[in-house]
Formats: sequence, structure tokens, C-alpha cells
Amino acid sequence: MNTQVATAAPARLNGLDVHAALDTIAAVKADKDLARFEFRVRNRWIDGTQNRSTIQGFYGAGREDTSRSKAFEYVHDEPPILLGSNKGANPGESLLHALAGCITTTLVLHATARGIVLRRVSAEIFGDVDVRGVLGLDESVNPGFEQIRVRLNVEADCSDEELENLILYVQEHSTVTNTIRRPGLVVLERVRD
Amino acid sequence: MNTQVATAAPARLNGLDVHAALDTIAAVKADKDLARFEFRVRNRWIDGTQNRSTIQGFYGAGREDTSRSKAFEYVHDEPPILLGSNKGANPGESLLHALAGCITTTLVLHATARGIVLRRVSAEIFGDVDVRGVLGLDESVNPGFEQIRVRLNVEADCSDEELENLILYVQEHSTVTNTIRRPGLVVLERVRD
Repeated sequence: MNTQVATAAPARLNGLDVHAALDTIAAVKADKDLARFEFRVRNRWIDGTQNRSTIQGFYGAGREDTSRSKAFEYVHDEPPILLGSNKGANPGESLLHALAGCITTTLVLHATARGIVLRRVSAEIFGDVDVRGVLGLDESVNPGFEQIRVRLNVEADCSDEELENLILYVQEHSTVTNTIRRPGLVVLERVRD
Repeated sequence: MNTQVATAAPARLNGLDVHAALDTIAAVKADKDLARFEFRVRNRWIDGTQNRSTIQGFYGAGREDTSRSKAFEYVHDEPPILLGSNKGANPGESLLHALAGCITTTLVLHATARGIVLRRVSAEIFGDVDVRGVLGLDESVNPGFEQIRVRLNVEADCSDEELENLILYVQEHSTVTNTIRRPGLVVLERVRD
């Protein structure tokens, strides 16, 4: 990443500080230990189907991060049909939320790196599960999601081919997509609603 | 599941309605179509590293669920070191949150099915990631989590052997664990702090 490119880049694109992004990339390129991150979640059972996660510190870029003055708290629960009282989304829905967010953030990051202006990014995620698996009623049923379909809608100031290339690249480079990937599990479909 | 067992069971255990649980299990056993669930998340990019998920309806137990009078909303963001402004946890942290919650809920469900009284369930989850993967700086680096360590702390009124068996069973039957599983990715360790 040479300085001339950095200097010529706009200050902000798609809401990202481009110079900060270039600095981060240059730093990680110069010292790969700075690329190592450890994220952490503490979770505590409340009662029944309710539990609460607390998320604050992490290690990354060579140091313990202290930028969050207080912890994020997220409560899980189940709907009544699954024995809960709807105090929060359930853990399966949190997984879909993680996937949607990671695809979007990765797309924004790499669109910006390519100088592509984004107008809209939205996704609908559908996850199919057979609860006989988690209930232990049939050991031949996989307790995990059988399939996760992602309907991604992107409007951007670039050619259709550039957008297709970008989306393929994102699918290959998203952290969550690559954590949950097994053959056929995640199906990404581009839509134009 | 015979009615005599159901009648003899306590009304509530670990905060779960035991009779409702037995009814659900009996219904799913009688008609496996009732076990099919489709969960859904809508996500929309806000700006930069921020995006928001909206979670409300789902299909399950043979019908469209309408129990949630309003949607749950969760915002993702990144910390400053990853170009954001800490308006919410990041997508990788949401994945760890999903995993923690699913292990806990699955444990509560099966402890209850076994008549085990739980006193405490807590988990600490650590996820290691090398951000050269998501940044596309080195194609030999997997963009996904390299390893996810789960430190699970359970206090329950049962023998140590019963608890070990329960935890093994939970690892095999949790929806999220089984969605993200690949060899060596998730390491579950029982702790007694």
C-alpha cells in the first residue's frame, strides 16, 4: 500500500475512514502479529430458556482493547412454542444475525477498498432446522441448521460484473461465513427487490 | 412419552414448564412435520461498520408464529481499531453469543428432561481470528475463526458422572454447535471456578 494511493483516496467512503483503513492494512502487512484478535463473550443462565451475554473487552492489534466504556448485553430467550417468553431472540436467530452482519460489514469493507460507492445493502436470512435433532428424538436428524439461505440486495455505483465479483469475494472472506461453512449449508442468492 | 410420567412430573423445573415441554415432545413425536422450523433475520446496512438486524416472525410447529408483538432489533458495529464506533458488538462476537446461548439453552432443556436441578450455568467463550483473512491480505489465512474455546461452568444437583454425560450430550445436540462444527474448531472445556 503506497503512500501516494493513500493520499489520493477520499477521507470517507461508505461511512468508513479511508485513511484509517489504509493505516490498519499497512500496519498488519508490516507485522502479522497485529492481525491476531481474540474476541470474548461471557454468558450466564438466567432461568428457563433465558440467558444473558456480556461483551466488552477483546485482544487485538497487539494490545488489550479498552475502547468500550461499558459492556454490551444481549438476552436470549425462546418463544412460547419453544417454552420461553420472548424476552429476546433465540440462539439460532443470533447465529443468522451474526451471518447477516458479517456479510454486510465485509461487503462494505471491500467495496470501499475498491472505491465502490454503496447505496444500499440489505439481507434476508432464512435458516431451516428440524427440532427433533436438538430434542434428541431422532439421532439421524442433524441438530444443526439444515440450510441457511441468504437473499442479499446490494445497490452500488459500479457495473453489474464488478458487483458480482465483489459479492463472490465477500462470501470467500467473511469471518462468520467461513466459520459455519460446510458443503451446501450457506446458499447466497443475490436479489433485486 | 406416556401420560403417567407427564402427570407425575413437577410443574416447573429449572424455570421450564415441564408439562408444556412434554406436550411439545409428544406432538413432535406424533407428527414430524411439526418439528420443522424456519427462523428469519432481516438485516440492513446503516453506514460504515454499522448494520441492524430485525427479528420477529418464524415458521414452526405447523404454523406461522405470531407471539412476538414487536421485533427484536440488534445493532452491529466495530470498535475504533476495526474502523467503527462501538454502537454494538461485532458479527464475530454475535456468533460467540449465539454459541454460548445455544449450549446453555440445550443444557437446561436436557437437564430438565433428566430431572436434574441446575444451580448455575455460565460460559466464557474465546474466539481466535487472524484478520489478514477477512482483509484479504493473505489467501493462505482462513478468514473464519481458527478456534473457539468454551469454558463451561455448571453447578447441578447430580453426580459428577451424570453432569459429564449431560455436557457431552449437549455438545452433540446443540443447534449452533452443530452448525459451526468442523474438526477442532469448537473446544469445550468444563471448569469449576
